[in-house]
Amino acid sequence: INSKLPNVSTTIFTVMSQMANSYNAINLSQGFPNFEAHPKLIELVSQAMQKGYNQYAPMPGLPSLRSIIAEKTSALYGYDYHPESEVTITSGATQAIFTIISAFVAPGDEVIIFKPAYDSYEPSIELFGGTVIPVQLSAPDFTINWEEVASKITKKTKMVIINTPHNPSGTVLSKNDMLQLEKLLKGTDIILLSDEVYEHIIFDQQKHESASKYPGLAERAFITASFGKTFHTTGWKMGYCLAPTVLMQEFRKVHQFNVFCSNHPIQFALAEYLKTPENYLSLSDFYQQKRDLFLSLIKDSRFSYTPASGTYFQLLDYSDITNEADVDFAERLTKEHGIASIPVSVFNLDQKDDHVLRFCFAKTEDTLKRAAEILCEV
Amino acid sequence: INSKLPNVSTTIFTVMSQMANSYNAINLSQGFPNFEAHPKLIELVSQAMQKGYNQYAPMPGLPSLRSIIAEKTSALYGYDYHPESEVTITSGATQAIFTIISAFVAPGDEVIIFKPAYDSYEPSIELFGGTVIPVQLSAPDFTINWEEVASKITKKTKMVIINTPHNPSGTVLSKNDMLQLEKLLKGTDIILLSDEVYEHIIFDQQKHESASKYPGLAERAFITASFGKTFHTTGWKMGYCLAPTVLMQEFRKVHQFNVFCSNHPIQFALAEYLKTPENYLSLSDFYQQKRDLFLSLIKDSRFSYTPASGTYFQLLDYSDITNEADVDFAERLTKEHGIASIPVSVFNLDQKDDHVLRFCFAKTEDTLKRAAEILCEV
Ligand SMILES: CSCCC(=O)C(=O)O
Ligand SMILES: CSCCC(=O)C(=O)O
Repeated sequence: INSKLPNVSTTIFTVMSQMANSYNAINLSQGFPNFEAHPKLIELVSQAMQKGYNQYAPMPGLPSLRSIIAEKTSALYGYDYHPESEVTITSGATQAIFTIISAFVAPGDEVIIFKPAYDSYEPSIELFGGTVIPVQLSAPDFTINWEEVASKITKKTKMVIINTPHNPSGTVLSKNDMLQLEKLLKGTDIILLSDEVYEHIIFDQQKHESASKYPGLAERAFITASFGKTFHTTGWKMGYCLAPTVLMQEFRKVHQFNVFCSNHPIQFALAEYLKTPENYLSLSDFYQQKRDLFLSLIKDSRFSYTPASGTYFQLLDYSDITNEADVDFAERLTKEHGIASIPVSVFNLDQKDDHVLRFCFAKTEDTLKRAAEILCEV
Repeated sequence: INSKLPNVSTTIFTVMSQMANSYNAINLSQGFPNFEAHPKLIELVSQAMQKGYNQYAPMPGLPSLRSIIAEKTSALYGYDYHPESEVTITSGATQAIFTIISAFVAPGDEVIIFKPAYDSYEPSIELFGGTVIPVQLSAPDFTINWEEVASKITKKTKMVIINTPHNPSGTVLSKNDMLQLEKLLKGTDIILLSDEVYEHIIFDQQKHESASKYPGLAERAFITASFGKTFHTTGWKMGYCLAPTVLMQEFRKVHQFNVFCSNHPIQFALAEYLKTPENYLSLSDFYQQKRDLFLSLIKDSRFSYTPASGTYFQLLDYSDITNEADVDFAERLTKEHGIASIPVSVFNLDQKDDHVLRFCFAKTEDTLKRAAEILCEV
């Protein structure tokens, strides 16, 4: 067998979750809540199945769900996507990302990504023959030097992938970042993939800078979003993407042969659940409390940190504790101390090691307290 | 925009279902049941959500579901797949097929397919730079000339795709077909994709010839299966695939970056529901009754037919009625007579037109009666 992805192994999320299970460790590695989705949402899915929404949904998604997503996007970011041709429901945001890359990246194309990066971007680009052009950012601020980005744009640049709020760093792109990017892409054919799955988890009165707010970006952008992240249902595998019609047409050509369509009863339930904006608008407050609790509990530990600006991840710098590589320290923390995290170096160029680990705080107060106790003892 | 799939448009299933809706026609085009899934299965999904199975499932699928699938396969076909490394749960069989092709087909590779073919194979192969090598079969028997197949195998042949029971023709491969194929592939590196989504829908005491029954095929085969087809839940988008470990490893490398994992509560429900083999073993009888009812009701019509051997599709030959192209006749039947079908030529090489239409009989008695009435008047 000639592997098409010789360097790919099992994702770090699976590796660390398995290690957490084997050692009975508190699992703050893979990003998922350990509390429940709203009973109302679960009830709506049950009702949809009972009402008979159990056969194929329309390929691009349920019209009522696409409409309310368009309304939500218009209300929040001021851009009017046409539900018929510019909104597509996907089986999770990862499937949207894979399909976007598949529909546009061809051999010879270059795709600019910012490291550390969510680990699906790179192998997906390579699978379609593209070349990854990485821009490495650094802890603790992960600030983008836009001149550096400009210097990496060539005639071969097909796509730029951004992610805000950013996993794993918890940072967010500013208005100025978006304006710089807009200027950079002006007059080019470059497609923007803006991964905004944590759009509703943003702290300290900051505003999410969606690419859809910037006309020069929106006209060339795919925006990916995740119901799993927003409604505590990562295992339902539901998300969506937005893009101008000409781009979305190409996306759907592949989407229909990849998954054809996404789960019908859940789409029906979400269309109803989204009618109450409070269901997602309350999320930032909800997670800010968790972040604040977690940070207050570890403030006397030997870890140091900059509070996350968004996402449900907090980076902790352990350089005052040990000189170990983050991969080794993460393993030791899991096996010896009973707490699992994600070593950030696996998302970096050449495994650059900033001595930071990523902890997921989408957990109950009780779990966060037990985790903090351990971290204070390390 | 430079389209990677310039010749692809919306699938015929979407086109015909939309036409059926617009003209309020009986929809026997796209393949899905118009009756309900078993209330017990729906109840199991509701329970799983209430019990809290709402976060990511393990990437390859729930261990209990993979185990019972391995047991079922062993009991039915005598091949022991290892649940840990040789069974993967997917978001529908189409996603499995796309991912199999993505993991193995590279520029320059040739893939042999039999036409008429399910419409996802070809664009998926082309998207990954492969060349489709079609073998055209003909109504009414769709018999494979294995010498013709042998003549198309070259050093570049990467994969052969078979489909039994066969959509759209409703024919099945015989034991002799499988032995011929086994002989043909012996000593080569060719991968077999055996699309067996209708494995439990086979009529007149015939036996499903799974590739897993033939050691020389099983050792090189991916087998794809569909819960949607088997449990009347096409809209839940759940399936699985089976393959030897070395092949499955490559599959999972891509799978984890395509969808990461599939719906968790449904997997939990299916693991329970599969404990009662009657739930799938009764399916052939169930659909044979529908086929027989449908055929008895149209026996005096001007359509002619060979009864389907499997699947929930019946081809009807209309050459005694009109000389129209099947695409035109299918459109006219929908718009003027109120009954939607699938023109088979769209699945053929160069749109070869045998003057047959495909009708889905996964419908209630009432619907089949109303449909037959119309067909008798045409
Ligand atoms: C798809 S598993 C990974 C979940 C996630 O987004 C993360 O932990 O970063
Ligand atoms: C994925 S929509 C098509 C359903 C189907 O398998 C068919 O009608 O052939």
